[in-house]
Amino acid sequence: MHVRFHAPGLEPGDRSAVLSAEESGHAVRVLRVRRGSEVRLFNGRGYECEAVVENPAPAGLTLRIVGPVCPRPEPRVRLTLAQAVLKGDGMDEVVRDAVMLGVRAIVPVVSARAETDRARLLKARRRERWQRIAVSSAKQCGRAVVPEVHEPVTFEEIVAALADPIRLMLAEPAVEGSAALDLSSLPGPVSAALLAGPEGGWTASEVSLATSSGWARLTLGSRTLRADAAAAVAIPVLQYLWGDL
Amino acid sequence: MHVRFHAPGLEPGDRSAVLSAEESGHAVRVLRVRRGSEVRLFNGRGYECEAVVENPAPAGLTLRIVGPVCPRPEPRVRLTLAQAVLKGDGMDEVVRDAVMLGVRAIVPVVSARAETDRARLLKARRRERWQRIAVSSAKQCGRAVVPEVHEPVTFEEIVAALADPIRLMLAEPAVEGSAALDLSSLPGPVSAALLAGPEGGWTASEVSLATSSGWARLTLGSRTLRADAAAAVAIPVLQYLWGDL
Repeated sequence: MHVRFHAPGLEPGDRSAVLSAEESGHAVRVLRVRRGSEVRLFNGRGYECEAVVENPAPAGLTLRIVGPVCPRPEPRVRLTLAQAVLKGDGMDEVVRDAVMLGVRAIVPVVSARAETDRARLLKARRRERWQRIAVSSAKQCGRAVVPEVHEPVTFEEIVAALADPIRLMLAEPAVEGSAALDLSSLPGPVSAALLAGPEGGWTASEVSLATSSGWARLTLGSRTLRADAAAAVAIPVLQYLWGDL
Repeated sequence: MHVRFHAPGLEPGDRSAVLSAEESGHAVRVLRVRRGSEVRLFNGRGYECEAVVENPAPAGLTLRIVGPVCPRPEPRVRLTLAQAVLKGDGMDEVVRDAVMLGVRAIVPVVSARAETDRARLLKARRRERWQRIAVSSAKQCGRAVVPEVHEPVTFEEIVAALADPIRLMLAEPAVEGSAALDLSSLPGPVSAALLAGPEGGWTASEVSLATSSGWARLTLGSRTLRADAAAAVAIPVLQYLWGDL
């Protein structure tokens, strides 16, 4: 795969580009990019082009744009992952894997068993950290689209806010409530939302609220999955069913 | 889920058990287990029982066994993961996820693009490290079976050694050779083997050797997957197809 850089301001038709100080430093010091190196730029919104390094300045590397290239196709189903905020670095893994797997947006959710709240997440600038991980994963996995990581919302907000035709709540087999969804009956929608829980699982009232708001309960067999791995196990199966794998 | 400890010497019918120094120290110092605590023991070979702590000694915790419990069911298809050895800590993630997902054995493979060899892996006692990660993941995910992590073998050896009715080689779409397998035509076998590649992918001669030895090539859409994540993406899809999810 080509060496790829994220240039968020890049627009189709641009003849030149300057990388951010962070991207430039990485390009020059780690990847040893030189004058004349052929690289790729992507703007995170689906546009990708070939470019040649003109001046490898570590504070602001400049490039001449050669022309557009065909970006990696995105999955047909636009999937939003609403992930209950996990402890420690758990969300880092979730964001990295979800971006690799092709999700279009990630919404951190403060659920009842999350051991944090929005004020603390905001103060620690966690959204910004997760967004940087999303850029890095898109770069590594060849995507020209960088999914947006939204500001954290409450469980009540996310359950009411998302209006995708398919809304799935990942839950353990032991959870009471509506019968688990028969995956094979799931149509290939235009967009879908997947709600993945925290370490301790959903509370009974969260399951009940989601169910009464029209979310279907999705259970993945009898396996016990780590909270930081559950979405990454469910997504490939859904994509297989939707012809997106 | 219950607090669970690995007691590899435990046999059905035993009336008491002593934990290893490592398990005992963890139980007493981290999990704060006390005299009278009710826990579970599993032997890693499918047997699990209830037990009560008698003496919480950090050097050798003793327990009275109450009786057997029904272990978590294992997947019906016994899956062997043959994983090309990855750089850095990549294999740690693969082992942790593969055990969570229910594989029955893991064979590290020294492929052409592995940047190591068997002598170095042996000297660094890597197999022992991966086996400890397998125990830890089985404990966390409620499995009563700990998959065996085998000594590393060469690519030529693994391609010839495994005789499962279904043998799949994970490869990128760009790899030349036989047509990619149509997943939906895959029968549910008794056992299967999955061969997952290193960071740089397989060499053309590796693909050709596997193909001529009867391995089918399996490609997962147009996504670029990290080498440490590819098997964990393929396994749930295979398990879904085999009714194991």
